Amino acid sequence: MQVPEYRVVGIPGLPEILPGSGLGELICGAVRAASLEVLDGDIFVVTQKVVSKDEGRSVRLESVKPSRLARNWAGELDKDPALVEIILSQSRRIVRMDRGRLIVETHHGFVCANAGVDQSNTAAGEVTLLPEDPDASARRLRSCLEQGFRTRLAVIVSDTFGRPWREGLVNVAIGVAGLAPLVDYRGDLDSAGRRLEATAMAWADELAGAAEPVMGKARGIPVAIVRGLTYPAAEGSARSLIRPAEQDLFR
Amino acid sequence: MQVPEYRVVGIPGLPEILPGSGLGELICGAVRAASLEVLDGDIFVVTQKVVSKDEGRSVRLESVKPSRLARNWAGELDKDPALVEIILSQSRRIVRMDRGRLIVETHHGFVCANAGVDQSNTAAGEVTLLPEDPDASARRLRSCLEQGFRTRLAVIVSDTFGRPWREGLVNVAIGVAGLAPLVDYRGDLDSAGRRLEATAMAWADELAGAAEPVMGKARGIPVAIVRGLTYPAAEGSARSLIRPAEQDLFR
Repeated sequence: MQVPEYRVVGIPGLPEILPGSGLGELICGAVRAASLEVLDGDIFVVTQKVVSKDEGRSVRLESVKPSRLARNWAGELDKDPALVEIILSQSRRIVRMDRGRLIVETHHGFVCANAGVDQSNTAAGEVTLLPEDPDASARRLRSCLEQGFRTRLAVIVSDTFGRPWREGLVNVAIGVAGLAPLVDYRGDLDSAGRRLEATAMAWADELAGAAEPVMGKARGIPVAIVRGLTYPAAEGSARSLIRPAEQDLFR
Repeated sequence: MQVPEYRVVGIPGLPEILPGSGLGELICGAVRAASLEVLDGDIFVVTQKVVSKDEGRSVRLESVKPSRLARNWAGELDKDPALVEIILSQSRRIVRMDRGRLIVETHHGFVCANAGVDQSNTAAGEVTLLPEDPDASARRLRSCLEQGFRTRLAVIVSDTFGRPWREGLVNVAIGVAGLAPLVDYRGDLDSAGRRLEATAMAWADELAGAAEPVMGKARGIPVAIVRGLTYPAAEGSARSLIRPAEQDLFR
């Protein structure tokens, strides 16, 4: 009887990432230093935070001059006016603004708190922005890792998002390279031989979430390998995880 | 260097589940038949569908007399009037009704499509309802599995939900026993020594999602073991994953 199985392995020992650190090479080095094998089809899940730091997507709050709007809203939101200014600059649209929370649609189309602008695990007085093009970040990392390990790999850039209705945050995929983020069971037959309808699973989001338990926010492990899943080769893009506005009942 | 790692193992060979099948015992049997070990702290993720079938939560559509309201709405929604009647009976509140979709809040407080009423992997003309109390289902399964394997275990009952803004479905936890569904990093220090704020991870949802790739909708594997994670002993309840209405910007 075939037992389907996969594993999730956190990569320890990555140094603090600085602009232009060369994240891909550093991941290769950390994998080798930990004596970890890399196998064909391994999926590397990399947190946005280290990608953004590597790409120089950090901003010093004191370098920002808040507009009058940002200053006004900062009081309402109980946030630093410079932080509000930065969040607004990363936003295409404000989805909700209430009770100290600012949920926006980013220029990429992601709906999340504070446009993904984040102060955790940054230098004092600094925040990170999301990568400008997280799919391109994933593609660059994939290319570097495939060269380093001479095998076919996939990369998911993950971030931590809240959701309506449910408590707690979950890791989701904001950048993808080397796999299709949606696995479509539509057209497959269920156990009773009926065609399944409307069942596309957000596979990349599930894998980003699966990587989180070995990472942890405070544990300083920003990269994990998901190993043992078979999936068709595909370029992939996390943009296919963004529901078009005209099909979304919640916009 | 310590490498954090865990694995996800699908349990093959479960028979078709019928009312009163004794799901816990059948899972024990399938685990033994597949020569799988069970270790202290293993987390069993079990799909709602087999839990509901075991608990007799199936309804024949032809046994239902649709109300006038259900008949009217069925046309709008392009659904069977009996199905609409059943969905409404499982709903505390309608969240959105448009374009053939019916998003409701169930009597448990879960917000999902069709109140979790589902036709896939059921006998012809039948639908399954969500378990009446999925935490109680998880507790019963946990008790049965702990007796069978004589070790401490946890159970997550999972279902497949859509989300606003993002395409694709993800597995989430609707019932929990033996672990806390939220892992709270608040108060922990980040790599720069700053206290992390507002970072409770929906761990049970991430693990429910992590189990999905070995299950698949059509593959007939409704149970997976998540192995190798350490977590504090807790009774747990999936109700703590439901955001209280007064704290939810989206109600």
